Amino acid sequence: METHCGTDLAGGPGILLAVDEPERGAFFPATARQALDELGRVRVTTTAALQDLGAFGKTMARVEILVSAWGFPCITADRLALAPRLRFVAHAASSLRSITGPDFWQRGIPISQAGDAMAPAVAELALTYSLALLRRVPRLDHGLRRKGGWERARKIPRARELRGARVTVVGASRTGRAYIAAVRALGAEVRVYDPYLPPGDPLAPYAADLATLLPRTDVLSIHAPGIPETHHLIDAHALALLPDGAGVVNTARASIIDLDALYDEVSSGRLDAALDVFDSEPLPAGDRWTRLPNVLVSPHVAGATRESRLRAGQIVIDEIRRHLDGRPLEHAVTPAALARMA
Amino acid sequence: METHCGTDLAGGPGILLAVDEPERGAFFPATARQALDELGRVRVTTTAALQDLGAFGKTMARVEILVSAWGFPCITADRLALAPRLRFVAHAASSLRSITGPDFWQRGIPISQAGDAMAPAVAELALTYSLALLRRVPRLDHGLRRKGGWERARKIPRARELRGARVTVVGASRTGRAYIAAVRALGAEVRVYDPYLPPGDPLAPYAADLATLLPRTDVLSIHAPGIPETHHLIDAHALALLPDGAGVVNTARASIIDLDALYDEVSSGRLDAALDVFDSEPLPAGDRWTRLPNVLVSPHVAGATRESRLRAGQIVIDEIRRHLDGRPLEHAVTPAALARMA
Repeated sequence: METHCGTDLAGGPGILLAVDEPERGAFFPATARQALDELGRVRVTTTAALQDLGAFGKTMARVEILVSAWGFPCITADRLALAPRLRFVAHAASSLRSITGPDFWQRGIPISQAGDAMAPAVAELALTYSLALLRRVPRLDHGLRRKGGWERARKIPRARELRGARVTVVGASRTGRAYIAAVRALGAEVRVYDPYLPPGDPLAPYAADLATLLPRTDVLSIHAPGIPETHHLIDAHALALLPDGAGVVNTARASIIDLDALYDEVSSGRLDAALDVFDSEPLPAGDRWTRLPNVLVSPHVAGATRESRLRAGQIVIDEIRRHLDGRPLEHAVTPAALARMA
Repeated sequence: METHCGTDLAGGPGILLAVDEPERGAFFPATARQALDELGRVRVTTTAALQDLGAFGKTMARVEILVSAWGFPCITADRLALAPRLRFVAHAASSLRSITGPDFWQRGIPISQAGDAMAPAVAELALTYSLALLRRVPRLDHGLRRKGGWERARKIPRARELRGARVTVVGASRTGRAYIAAVRALGAEVRVYDPYLPPGDPLAPYAADLATLLPRTDVLSIHAPGIPETHHLIDAHALALLPDGAGVVNTARASIIDLDALYDEVSSGRLDAALDVFDSEPLPAGDRWTRLPNVLVSPHVAGATRESRLRAGQIVIDEIRRHLDGRPLEHAVTPAALARMA
């Protein structure tokens, strides 16, 4: 049944679904899995089974289309040589950095990612955290869990409403834009810092530099990529510009904020924070961030909703179909674009 | 300077501002206080100084307009007799039950309340809690604060988005309507239970009975008044109709939910909850609700934002001005309306 060039006509192209459970079922529940099966001969594997180079070669020998996610090994020149028929990668997650080195791009294999699926989920968690900090939810909830909490909790700084609040967004990314739409729908006053914003962008009239924006901020929400240019963009000096009682939300990349400086401001009680990302993950037991009452913490799950996984699975299916039909991809990534992505 | 009937012309009517700090300053910061001062001769007192009947009589003898809030003593016939000139009460808070007994209404003194000021604040906390439960914020945050939390927290039930979520609202009150507007703006599918909804109401097409709505609910949010008809409206049977993983939000009145039944469902992990109100307040130290990881708790502060206090102060000022000008009040309450209010 094997042919040596072109597509295997019996059953369509060889598709490898190299996504571990429980994410595999989250991306591709029964109906989505059926749609995928209709596109080719789908084989399923775990990422653990692909770490060994020999096993990798055996599995990848006849794979034409790869569906990857977290945990897939970096596609080095060695590994690429073991996948001679590979002609399209549909990455169900967002970041491609862990799987694509310089070698990968040499062969010109098109690759898509599903970051669009996650943007609404990340934006909604940033919204949730913004509201929670304005309303002092962490101080109230953690306070009530301590002795004498009720009366003390009622004496914390007065809660604020999102309607009319001054929200500063760092990064007019997909996620940043989805977040802006949500907080604006609830009446917030949004300002943006993004040095790459084109002059004609609808957000351009709301853009300013950080020195202007930070002193006029009730909530600061980070939506920039984690690239060298954004490393510690929000440092001790920037944090010091925020007014007393402001909230800092980070659902993007930990490196954008100097977390030591933020810890100083939050542990003193001057600022509150809600963080989904940390310099070292998983956060070790008893980490300093887990001991502060005016903080909400989550284990890097901003993009991980039931709905975002379904959307990502659908993007993968649609991109494979476009690839097979010879239509333009809608979620392709180039090395140049990657340099500006999270 | 005293006259025995009508208004004291020198300085305008006697206004008693009987609101304790820090709420007094929250309702009436400098500019609002100045506006109040321009309406009459404002005297300030604490509620503590009014508990004694003799002191009450001495203070109230020449008061024409009373500005009250929490802690003002119940205006019984005894006390009413000690306030012979009282002709208008502007209550800066919402519930009038603690100050108005049947005696009060006998003399026909008009009374206003400022519930409108609080509705947006309560609605925003209910929104905050709805998002937080869908995103499993309490499980994630509390989970990370325990040993081995990161990996365990990532294995909790998958987070959900508000966009597309099925939100069931009990009570199409001012607060309920503000909440509905907010969750709809974010893409939620809203259904309403309210037996008093008029047929032509814009929400009428979205109304159904609880037996229909509860099995199709991702978030249940309570916005009904705490009256005999709503006592334990959400009982064990109603809670059992909710699907696994649903969230219950109560920023209204504790009595509407059978909290023992809710505790059973939440402590088993089947439902999550976010509660601002409790059967017994203040919640005693170590209360059962403060020991559950899948719960957010707050000390009855849903209406207490900086902005809601400013709006309430403005309502008081505007109502006093209307009263003095002989124009119709906009926030007056009658005994009949009171029977349907929280």
